Amino acid sequence: MDRLFEKAKKVLTNNWQGRYTIPAAGIYPFQWNWDSGFIAIGWAHFDITKAVKEIDSLFNAQWTNGFLPHIVFWDEASDKAYFPGSDFYRTHLSSHSINAHGTSGITQPPVHAFILEKLLAITNKDEQVVGLIKKLFNPLFQYHRYLYKERDPLREGLVYILHNWESGTDNSPAWDGIFSKMDQFVPNYDIQKLRKDTLHVNEKQRPKNREYDFYLYLVEVIKNSKYRTEPIFKKSPFLVQDPLFNALLIRSNESLIKLAELAGESGKIEQIEAWQEKAVQSLNDKLYDEKMGTYLYFDLKSNKKIDKITSSGFAPLLTSAPDAVKVKRLTATMNGKKFKGENGRYFLCPSFDTTAEAFESQRYWRGPVWLNMNWLLYQGLQRHGCPKLAEEIKKDSLQIVGEQGFYEYFEPEKEKSKWMDGKGYGGATFSWTAALVIDFLKSERGGE
Amino acid sequence: MDRLFEKAKKVLTNNWQGRYTIPAAGIYPFQWNWDSGFIAIGWAHFDITKAVKEIDSLFNAQWTNGFLPHIVFWDEASDKAYFPGSDFYRTHLSSHSINAHGTSGITQPPVHAFILEKLLAITNKDEQVVGLIKKLFNPLFQYHRYLYKERDPLREGLVYILHNWESGTDNSPAWDGIFSKMDQFVPNYDIQKLRKDTLHVNEKQRPKNREYDFYLYLVEVIKNSKYRTEPIFKKSPFLVQDPLFNALLIRSNESLIKLAELAGESGKIEQIEAWQEKAVQSLNDKLYDEKMGTYLYFDLKSNKKIDKITSSGFAPLLTSAPDAVKVKRLTATMNGKKFKGENGRYFLCPSFDTTAEAFESQRYWRGPVWLNMNWLLYQGLQRHGCPKLAEEIKKDSLQIVGEQGFYEYFEPEKEKSKWMDGKGYGGATFSWTAALVIDFLKSERGGE
Repeated sequence: MDRLFEKAKKVLTNNWQGRYTIPAAGIYPFQWNWDSGFIAIGWAHFDITKAVKEIDSLFNAQWTNGFLPHIVFWDEASDKAYFPGSDFYRTHLSSHSINAHGTSGITQPPVHAFILEKLLAITNKDEQVVGLIKKLFNPLFQYHRYLYKERDPLREGLVYILHNWESGTDNSPAWDGIFSKMDQFVPNYDIQKLRKDTLHVNEKQRPKNREYDFYLYLVEVIKNSKYRTEPIFKKSPFLVQDPLFNALLIRSNESLIKLAELAGESGKIEQIEAWQEKAVQSLNDKLYDEKMGTYLYFDLKSNKKIDKITSSGFAPLLTSAPDAVKVKRLTATMNGKKFKGENGRYFLCPSFDTTAEAFESQRYWRGPVWLNMNWLLYQGLQRHGCPKLAEEIKKDSLQIVGEQGFYEYFEPEKEKSKWMDGKGYGGATFSWTAALVIDFLKSERGGE
Repeated sequence: MDRLFEKAKKVLTNNWQGRYTIPAAGIYPFQWNWDSGFIAIGWAHFDITKAVKEIDSLFNAQWTNGFLPHIVFWDEASDKAYFPGSDFYRTHLSSHSINAHGTSGITQPPVHAFILEKLLAITNKDEQVVGLIKKLFNPLFQYHRYLYKERDPLREGLVYILHNWESGTDNSPAWDGIFSKMDQFVPNYDIQKLRKDTLHVNEKQRPKNREYDFYLYLVEVIKNSKYRTEPIFKKSPFLVQDPLFNALLIRSNESLIKLAELAGESGKIEQIEAWQEKAVQSLNDKLYDEKMGTYLYFDLKSNKKIDKITSSGFAPLLTSAPDAVKVKRLTATMNGKKFKGENGRYFLCPSFDTTAEAFESQRYWRGPVWLNMNWLLYQGLQRHGCPKLAEEIKKDSLQIVGEQGFYEYFEPEKEKSKWMDGKGYGGATFSWTAALVIDFLKSERGGE
């Protein structure tokens, strides 16, 4: 255990850049939005100052309308060697993108208020963390306000993502149906030449070229709308209510309510509670599917639920939304043949339904196990009184990292993983894997 | 006029660094706190995005306790060639100094809320400025709260500065008495070798070496206290209530009250009004001196007013503090022999009483005219219905810059300035001089 901890510390230390932590050298040479949240959890156990700097740095990049970008291109040299970099996003098209450094123009799941609540607990109310909470309460409030104002035009309490990269689960099979309708799109560039990710990672583990075309096309739609959500909502083929994104927003609202008094901002509680009430109700009414035994994505364009079962569908366990009946259904799905497989064939928790046709055990978010999802699900299962399943997820997480290393994502099939000879998928020294292993090792009872 | 405007634009454009504006090449190669406020006023007239970036960049450097440093050492190469740089401040001694970039550990006069109100008017409520106000309202509120919490231990409504550099008027004769009591201090370094400012500017125009010793000693006291104000208040020989610093804080409180609704923060108005009421009362009761015809500095260490008349003493004209009787006294002092001199011998407004022994016409803040003070006094005089004196200050400002160039500070004696052959003092292409000349030229009726 101590050796794993020391190794994990080394991964974070190597990836530290003085004010933020890169997710992995080479393939991800900047600061990523939700990565920074998970990474801070790791730092908090042995270097609180770095945990605080990590989150504070990210918020330096917040736009004036509250929007929080998914990448901060801190390093100009790497920016030029990366695709798509700040040149591609052209965020100056937005009047809100006032920043000291280049950023992307899309966001990622809103983990940070939740993370701040966790940092406070992990560090036993360290004064640096208290200071950070006082400083960032309002930026976080403004970010959540942006989401409800700009991403919930129907005023349902559910926000939409306008790009699959905003989900954090970039190439999930959930979008296959949407992309299949975009097949008329003919790019005027050679995507194979533009991509840089496949220089670092085997292309079998990464999204396909044709999918990448669609990702870029969506950014073009967003840029043509000058980052204004009104025209995006009218024109974009991709408008999805994501159960993971919304669950994290709801969980983060809960954290803001808990932290408001400490931040001297009790006056904001009423507004957050108003968001929260509607959000919890709609999450259950609109995204929960009793028959499928999980929460689903909702496609606002076709006005239909998307009938794909992903690990994101379990994320509402992080919130107060599921009652005991729903919890039982969700855990039965996770613990059943779709995810755990017959006779426990798979490590918990595959990112996609292993019995579905689109399942691919080594391709990014179409099957592999991810440590951040495991850590989130662990928190959610503990919250809802399922310690046994929670501990199983924790045990599987520590086992795969112990056997394979601090990879970005992992082969879920136990038998197959034995043959992999110390190899995982994607980045080989991945920061959030290291950070969350540290939390699994160090938190007495890390769940809620 | 158009040529002066074009020249001023060029100064700002040359000093622009992509996210902030240096005050002047060579001598001031970073971002300075109150400089950035004045500089943004200039940008607002022809490049709103840069005005907004300028202020936003500065707030990236805010500490988690609300403190706003007086220098952000953005550029690491210049940092190593500057003294005193971030190595000297060692701000990591404070648990609140969480920053992406190195900073100093002292602050400067709180102009920024006032500046944001001005930017809103100059740009006719441009949406980028509205966005910036929404983003920065709370950081500004937190900064003011820091000042009242940490710098007003007697709860008088007046805040103290803990270093002469915090005044913005670095070597004012106001501190001569305090420094004369520190004469026992023997430094263990060669200040002449450490200083870099005199590489760029003739030493006759800069503070003296012995004064520099005291400046550094005060930073040592602050560092030994780990930037905590409680021990500083007990130990430091320098604790001064400054009429300029307090007037700008009061004026900035007024701006926060005006901007609160736009920022969606009306709930904070009550707190700011409570600060404000006490502050205005104490400014009049404690710092105004009827006999001297001005507001004075107060030395908390000796518990006495400092009987030196500086242009900072007129700064309360920016606020509601002076009634008609006080306004008459203040303008009589400014317009009389101490500042304007007999037969209008001096340009308005010298930084120090020209009839006093300590007056030196070319040494930094001991006599020269400064454009930022002139611009502030212009605003204050317009507010209190003194347009004639206001216009005289504006006319003098444009004349000296037109004749001498965009210098940092200027010879106040008209006869002497004729012989100077197109030369001012200090930095030769000084950003705030250019920025405020632009405002004088472009604002129809710039005052309040």
